Amino acid sequence: MTAPVYIHGIGMTKFGSFEDKALKDLLIEASKEAIKDAGVSKIDAVFVGNFMGGSLSNQEILGAIVANDLGLGYIPTAKLEGACASGGIALRQGVLSIMSGEYETVLVVGAEKMKHASTSTVTQVINTAMDQSTNEKEAGLTFPGYFGTVANRYFYETGASKEHLAKVALKNRENAMNNPYAQFQKPTTIDEILNARMVTDPLGLFDCSPITDGGAAVVLSSKPSNIKVRASAQASGPTLMQDAKDLLSLPAVRVSGEKVYEKAGLGPEDIDVVEIHDCFSMTEILSSEELGFFPKLQGWQGVNEGKTRVDGEIPINTSGGLLSKGHPIGATGIAQIYQLVRQLRGNAPNQLTKQPTIALAQNLGGTGAYSVVHILERV
Amino acid sequence: MTAPVYIHGIGMTKFGSFEDKALKDLLIEASKEAIKDAGVSKIDAVFVGNFMGGSLSNQEILGAIVANDLGLGYIPTAKLEGACASGGIALRQGVLSIMSGEYETVLVVGAEKMKHASTSTVTQVINTAMDQSTNEKEAGLTFPGYFGTVANRYFYETGASKEHLAKVALKNRENAMNNPYAQFQKPTTIDEILNARMVTDPLGLFDCSPITDGGAAVVLSSKPSNIKVRASAQASGPTLMQDAKDLLSLPAVRVSGEKVYEKAGLGPEDIDVVEIHDCFSMTEILSSEELGFFPKLQGWQGVNEGKTRVDGEIPINTSGGLLSKGHPIGATGIAQIYQLVRQLRGNAPNQLTKQPTIALAQNLGGTGAYSVVHILERV
Repeated sequence: MTAPVYIHGIGMTKFGSFEDKALKDLLIEASKEAIKDAGVSKIDAVFVGNFMGGSLSNQEILGAIVANDLGLGYIPTAKLEGACASGGIALRQGVLSIMSGEYETVLVVGAEKMKHASTSTVTQVINTAMDQSTNEKEAGLTFPGYFGTVANRYFYETGASKEHLAKVALKNRENAMNNPYAQFQKPTTIDEILNARMVTDPLGLFDCSPITDGGAAVVLSSKPSNIKVRASAQASGPTLMQDAKDLLSLPAVRVSGEKVYEKAGLGPEDIDVVEIHDCFSMTEILSSEELGFFPKLQGWQGVNEGKTRVDGEIPINTSGGLLSKGHPIGATGIAQIYQLVRQLRGNAPNQLTKQPTIALAQNLGGTGAYSVVHILERV
Repeated sequence: MTAPVYIHGIGMTKFGSFEDKALKDLLIEASKEAIKDAGVSKIDAVFVGNFMGGSLSNQEILGAIVANDLGLGYIPTAKLEGACASGGIALRQGVLSIMSGEYETVLVVGAEKMKHASTSTVTQVINTAMDQSTNEKEAGLTFPGYFGTVANRYFYETGASKEHLAKVALKNRENAMNNPYAQFQKPTTIDEILNARMVTDPLGLFDCSPITDGGAAVVLSSKPSNIKVRASAQASGPTLMQDAKDLLSLPAVRVSGEKVYEKAGLGPEDIDVVEIHDCFSMTEILSSEELGFFPKLQGWQGVNEGKTRVDGEIPINTSGGLLSKGHPIGATGIAQIYQLVRQLRGNAPNQLTKQPTIALAQNLGGTGAYSVVHILERV
């Protein structure tokens, strides 16, 4: 089914470190911009994407806080959590709620405030996105540990090396340099990336998405606009490394991609511009394969040949991606939409020279526990 | 719009203290029972209601964990949070998602694991359900403090006294005595309730819902069954005491009630049996007024006259309510549905002698930040 849902407004904060802004300030700032951009006077419901507000800011009930602070009236609100896919899941619930006929216009907003906490605290809270009841917790597995293992296996199975991961990180940094909202805009080089501090072999500092404060919002409506949500799809996958049948597969990404193409009546060859959840450089490559942009185990060659660059065949993460735009968890899935809507409107950072009409966003949660994919269309 | 959504199965764990069960065990136990009760072989999505899993169990991604552990396949899942209304909100998202046409059959499950944490930790985490960015946090306001203030004002405006609150607590305990799933089944008396340890004047121990471990689940489908979700409605309200225009009003409850009656084409006079979110004895009385079962400021008289007892005109909390059945936060809104479905099926603890056909559940979040109301019908 094609979702009769349209995007009317987008907003986001700069991504970075904001000592003087509370979690709710980030939500409100992004929301106000999206509502202003949409030019709407009435919002029927609010969906919030957030992952660590309870743990790091002692703040839940974010839905009600947004509705109250924006003076939206006694409207229904809720928070959605699906680890790093919280924003994409909130977006999808907004889409489904409009499809249900219950609401005409909804605000979807995601944010995370992380920079005030210590790195070890953030690492512990991120680990709540793995199943904590198992020996993997006892063994001390972390997210960089997981994707580092995956990268080593990928190198073993293919001809890829640390240099190909570095090319992903460099591409995304070069894109971020043109994006004023990005956390990191400082130029870098392949050598700097290859020689950076190791996080988990083979992933160095530039291969890992950072800790970030930020927010992003979108206003959806059943009333037509020139940006349509052509399809929305979601899937889940293993919550444990030991349950992965193939370390080089992300079934949630593959299945969510298959579903979204089926719903949209499109294939990967029809997509003009993509935002992929590059929590690690390795993850961008794997997911680009699972979404059909490259054959299995050949994504690294696409990167090597520059195909995923802004001027390539299938531009991926023109925003700078999680790696360089930043990764304020609850905002991430919605910030992907922000960048793609600007591409479809023709005024994005790193705007494609040939105006895109079909865009795809993929948001991952956990080590592959969640994947949400949306296809947007300029109509 | 009448929701074309039906209830096919229900399940719940006993409510109480379960040292040997993890949060996910409670989710799985309730889910298995609901799926077995429904007799379905395919679930299209899972919605989880949970409030403090991240803070107290270091465990998020509950949706994916349930889907994985139950072997439901790579289906979409998400967690919903709206403080103590998390369960009701998850239920509502399940209903809307079926109405959207996206899913045929969904599992909605809520749980909380709280008893392993200290009371002071639980109190701090519960306080994340108030806006933490204000002077009310600095002043040390807690939930018993809020509803204690409300009770004192209620006494001032009406002829009510601590004894009327005690009658609510006694009624709910008497109901819980017949409910094998309830946390508290020990008989009590008005005297014991009136003389119990004070929590926040005038609310004593029996006026406050307890800390509880437990889970509850429901299977919804667009395929017909003999229990229909006749209407679903939700509203939000102030997140701060200083924003309440009237301390004796819960606008979220009032507005969600007005909406649900309008959607159902029914009024309070048509409801046969009710579960109200009695986080405090005072709250049951206030919400019974906001939902139209009694005129404003007269709910205490209804209690005094026994109208809310199992054999009264409008039986409220035949399960024992939050006060005596227990309040495992994420499970609460779904456990209300469990009891009402059993009433509609004719096999509930405290089954009404005249078979009910229309039932109403009201689930509150925060100090009135969220209210979700569902009307169920035996068809």
